[in-house]
Amino acid sequence: MQRSRGVTLRLYMGLIHFPVYNKNYERIASAITTLDIHDLARLAKTYGVKRLFIVTPLDDQQNLTRRVLRHWIDGYGGQYNRHRKEALELVCVVPDLDRAVEGIKKTEGETPLIIATDARHEKKDRSMSYEKARSLIKEDKAVMLLFGTAWGLHEEVMKKTDSILDPVSGKTGYNHLSVRTAAAIILDRLAGEI
Amino acid sequence: MQRSRGVTLRLYMGLIHFPVYNKNYERIASAITTLDIHDLARLAKTYGVKRLFIVTPLDDQQNLTRRVLRHWIDGYGGQYNRHRKEALELVCVVPDLDRAVEGIKKTEGETPLIIATDARHEKKDRSMSYEKARSLIKEDKAVMLLFGTAWGLHEEVMKKTDSILDPVSGKTGYNHLSVRTAAAIILDRLAGEI
Repeated sequence: MQRSRGVTLRLYMGLIHFPVYNKNYERIASAITTLDIHDLARLAKTYGVKRLFIVTPLDDQQNLTRRVLRHWIDGYGGQYNRHRKEALELVCVVPDLDRAVEGIKKTEGETPLIIATDARHEKKDRSMSYEKARSLIKEDKAVMLLFGTAWGLHEEVMKKTDSILDPVSGKTGYNHLSVRTAAAIILDRLAGEI
Repeated sequence: MQRSRGVTLRLYMGLIHFPVYNKNYERIASAITTLDIHDLARLAKTYGVKRLFIVTPLDDQQNLTRRVLRHWIDGYGGQYNRHRKEALELVCVVPDLDRAVEGIKKTEGETPLIIATDARHEKKDRSMSYEKARSLIKEDKAVMLLFGTAWGLHEEVMKKTDSILDPVSGKTGYNHLSVRTAAAIILDRLAGEI
C-alpha cells in the first residue's frame, strides 16, 4: 500500500533502559537521559513515526519521564514551545518491551516486526540491511525499531527481536555514536523522503 | 582525486554560538551545551571530518569548553573512555568564524567552501543540494559545514558563507530537530559510505 507524503508510517521506536549492558557488559537498568527523550521525539515527529516508547521498569525513572512530558505537553513548556509539545505527545512510558508490543498490536491489528539496532553487531543470520528495512516500512509493514542506552541492548532483548539492523558505519571504522545521533541517521536512512 | 576508505576528508565542521538568533530573532551569543561537543565530535570522528570548531567569543564559554576537553583528553576521562578521547581530540575552540577559516587555509592551502545549514532556509540562489555538496566533498574540495545553535545562524554569519544546504526534510513537514540530530543526518548524507 502506498502512503501519501505527510501521513505517519506504521513505524514505532523504543528506547530501552533495561536490560542493557554497562561498560563491563553487566546487565543493568540505565538512568533516563531527558535530552534523549526530546531528541528522539523530535526525530519521531520529523519522520512520521507513530509512537516513541520509553522503556524502563523503574518507578522513579518512569515518574521522571512523565514529569518531563507533563511540563512540555500540559505545563508551561507547551505554551513556550508548541513544536516541542507536538513531538513529546508521541511519547509513551512503558515498563517493558512486551507492553509496548501489546500496544502496537492493538493499534495496528498485527504483531510488529521488531528490529534491533546494535553498533557492535557483526553481520549474521538475523542481519537486516537498510534497504530491506526501508522497503518493509515503505510497504506499510508495522515495524518497531529498538535503540539501546548505556552500552547497548542486552542479549535478553535481542532474543525478542526479529532482525538486527546493520551498524551505522561512517567511513573511518570508528563506531561510537550517541544513541541520539545514531537514531537520527537510522531514521533518515529508513524513512527519509519515502 | 579519489580517496581510499578510512582516510579523513578535507571536511570541517563549525558549531556557531555567536552570532545566532534567540526565540525572538534577536542577535545573541548562546551558551555551550557540553553534550553537543561530545555528540558532534563523535560524528566528526565517524565520518572522517578533520576538525570540529567550537565558535564562541565568550571567555567563560571558551574556558568551559577547554575544561571539558582537558578532562576527556588529558584527564581521567581519557583513561575511562579512549573512544571519547579520540573524538574530542578533533575539537578546536575559536573566537569567531574567521579564525577557523584561517586555520583551515593554513592546513589545506586553500580557502574552504563554507556551507551553512539552516532549517528555515527556503530554496534560493545560494541553495545547495545534498547531491552537489556530496560530490564536492568526494572530489576532495576543502569544505566547512556550519551549524547554528539556539534558533539558528544569524544573517551576519550567513553573509560569510558560499552556499546554504537544503533543510533536512523528513516526511511530515515538521522541521524542528536538535542541532545534534540534524548534524548526524547531514553528515551521513554528505559523507556516509563515500
